Amino acid sequence: MSSKRQMTLHFFMNSTGFHETAWRLSKAEPERVTDLAFYKKMAQRAEQAKFHSVFLADGYDLGGSVKHQALGRLEPYTLLSALAAVTEQIGLIATVSTSYNEPYHTARYFASLDHLSGGRAGWNIVTTGIGKTHLNFSREEHFEHAERYNRALEFVQLTTKLWDSWEDDALVADKGTGVYTDTEKIHAINHKGDSFSVKGPLNIPRPPQGYPVLAQAGSSEEGKELAARTGEIVYTAQQTLKEAQAFYADVKSRLSRYGRSPDDVQIVPGFSSIVGETESEAKEKEAELHESIIPELGLKRLSDRLKVDLFSYPLDGPVPQLPDPETINETRSRFELMKNMIETEKLTIRQLIQRASGGNGHRTFAGTAVQVADQLEEWFLNGACDGFVIRPQQLPTGLDDFARLVIPELQRRGLFHTEYKGRTLRENLGLTRPSNQFAGQR
Amino acid sequence: MSSKRQMTLHFFMNSTGFHETAWRLSKAEPERVTDLAFYKKMAQRAEQAKFHSVFLADGYDLGGSVKHQALGRLEPYTLLSALAAVTEQIGLIATVSTSYNEPYHTARYFASLDHLSGGRAGWNIVTTGIGKTHLNFSREEHFEHAERYNRALEFVQLTTKLWDSWEDDALVADKGTGVYTDTEKIHAINHKGDSFSVKGPLNIPRPPQGYPVLAQAGSSEEGKELAARTGEIVYTAQQTLKEAQAFYADVKSRLSRYGRSPDDVQIVPGFSSIVGETESEAKEKEAELHESIIPELGLKRLSDRLKVDLFSYPLDGPVPQLPDPETINETRSRFELMKNMIETEKLTIRQLIQRASGGNGHRTFAGTAVQVADQLEEWFLNGACDGFVIRPQQLPTGLDDFARLVIPELQRRGLFHTEYKGRTLRENLGLTRPSNQFAGQR
Repeated sequence: MSSKRQMTLHFFMNSTGFHETAWRLSKAEPERVTDLAFYKKMAQRAEQAKFHSVFLADGYDLGGSVKHQALGRLEPYTLLSALAAVTEQIGLIATVSTSYNEPYHTARYFASLDHLSGGRAGWNIVTTGIGKTHLNFSREEHFEHAERYNRALEFVQLTTKLWDSWEDDALVADKGTGVYTDTEKIHAINHKGDSFSVKGPLNIPRPPQGYPVLAQAGSSEEGKELAARTGEIVYTAQQTLKEAQAFYADVKSRLSRYGRSPDDVQIVPGFSSIVGETESEAKEKEAELHESIIPELGLKRLSDRLKVDLFSYPLDGPVPQLPDPETINETRSRFELMKNMIETEKLTIRQLIQRASGGNGHRTFAGTAVQVADQLEEWFLNGACDGFVIRPQQLPTGLDDFARLVIPELQRRGLFHTEYKGRTLRENLGLTRPSNQFAGQR
Repeated sequence: MSSKRQMTLHFFMNSTGFHETAWRLSKAEPERVTDLAFYKKMAQRAEQAKFHSVFLADGYDLGGSVKHQALGRLEPYTLLSALAAVTEQIGLIATVSTSYNEPYHTARYFASLDHLSGGRAGWNIVTTGIGKTHLNFSREEHFEHAERYNRALEFVQLTTKLWDSWEDDALVADKGTGVYTDTEKIHAINHKGDSFSVKGPLNIPRPPQGYPVLAQAGSSEEGKELAARTGEIVYTAQQTLKEAQAFYADVKSRLSRYGRSPDDVQIVPGFSSIVGETESEAKEKEAELHESIIPELGLKRLSDRLKVDLFSYPLDGPVPQLPDPETINETRSRFELMKNMIETEKLTIRQLIQRASGGNGHRTFAGTAVQVADQLEEWFLNGACDGFVIRPQQLPTGLDDFARLVIPELQRRGLFHTEYKGRTLRENLGLTRPSNQFAGQR
């Protein structure tokens, strides 16, 4: 059993769950969106269940739907640092954009989080697909799609140089001689590229993990290429086994070009779960979530995303013709996935709103522990993924349901670990610690 | 007794103490510079002693003296967020520069820290006086002194707009109607200034304190003016009672111009302490610190700061003539203070190194609890300050010495509180909660 391949599971945390209007349910606690104790309890529950990580999304724009959506949450660096102090083993993955940040700060915050947590930090690299974010950063235009990805690659490579700017044994602290660091083992990086010029070195020792675990979440052509070059976890939205298999094969096939092996990258699709003790309980929960839906919210969000005015069509009629994906600059792969889903399943606007409210493009599923485990197992054993990002549609109850019901079922099947295997997130995921690109350079 | 004016005390925390080579002492733990447990213990000790805050300095450049100095520490947002989770009442003040950050991020990180900590965040506003930082941020030139302060003022004003972009009661979370926020109480700020253009609103509710407490640490003409307009705490380096009184009167006299009263701003000079059970124990500790000094380190740091090559002069001879302060772009007020100290006290280079190693321009003092309390009381009762930033020359032991010996002495004299008076840092300092500049605007 111990040598059997096991899946990795990440807990995607927000405040009230991933269904857009789950905050309206009786057990939701929407007034606690900024309350540390609320998140602490969830993180500790997730750790108790042996989730590999707490995974946080992020963006730098409130967006237009705050009238009906539980937006306006705690910021990932600060929240995960606080959670680092009250957890022991679970990984802490923050989404941070390469389009609106400085590599020096990003390298440093992650290094600090990695030290604070004893090697449990991860960085979910995104390029920010939201159209108005630039207006919060003194820019008149959003970065164009290809430019965003060029910048992202340079950003990530530069950041790894900063982490490597201290060799692992640079800190000597020899009280007798007064030598605090061996300065031959601390390197200026003198990076000069298209987007950045950074001298270095970083002002904090190399992270315990060498680098925090690097996750990547873009699934467009450029996103897959970035993942193949730099990613160790790829978080992706996939609706069907077939599509997921194709994506999996595609990304894994790109790795050899960069001297990497298939085991160096773990592909983890999102899974927006509803779990019940019985099938009817799960369906009741799903129905309750459907009832919470505010049609205007769904129409507005989908009109924005799909670039078509859905308000002018009947709710129970078909979704109208969508534009060519090539014209889309924001979250392009998600657009393609939804367009594909609409056309294949011939969804009405109301059905589309229901699907999108619960999954935001990610796969949704409601069922018993056995049914959920069957679904996860099918994908895992058939070349569709290495694990999942679990997105409970309703929180905090949906986390507890998953932890209490599904995790033991997966463990019974030998598909999920029963104890953390190492000390760091990297060790728990079975990823190797990167060597230092400057080691030995004098 | 209860109506007597009492001093505020902030604990300036780093890893091994503020004497530059205190890490060489036998009780120092220089290998723990990135260990959360080490800082947690100090923060909890400071809270037990009723310090108003843990106060962290910061910069974005490793600097050239890491061979002999315990540099390379945890980053303030991440460290203070972690400490927020393991403390209950003490304030958490982070130094953040307005020259190398984005206002949207800064506003958000502080808002998040303020929420996480239940209203205990503070921001020490600096403009970064270190000459090579720009090379880590894709800039060819450092910001010039006046430009830095113009940018700082715009940055701070813009940040307060972002905090105010949510009115205090904007979050409704009415499950029945599906209204999460009252969007009439969430405001775009549409800021367009010389340095920044930011649309807003911020993506997190208004901080519990309205704004985190605003501290300011520049003591140049421009720094004092920024403090008078926006600061609530002014952290300053003052060597003598007379100079401190002049600075105090100067800053307080500027407030009325901005419609503010003297009580709106608290002036807290740094105090680099060595405390002993007896005077001879204190002097022994001081001697031990003097012995730890590495002359080349002091010569290098002072040559950089004073813009003169001290290596070419005898250690026991006088400090040579220094340049005109007007030619200095970095930490100008500190330059003036040190020039003044050197000339007044006719210091040799060795004596200057000893003074600078222990205080970095801040006042140094070694003595018993009674002697330290006498010094603090003299300044506090004679119009030189409202409190102090305590910088133990040696950590963690110097914190414990101060907490165990000096704090009870100050409390016996009725000069320091024996219990936190409120729930937030602002309440504990007796500062008013700012009103919202957008409240009621429709």
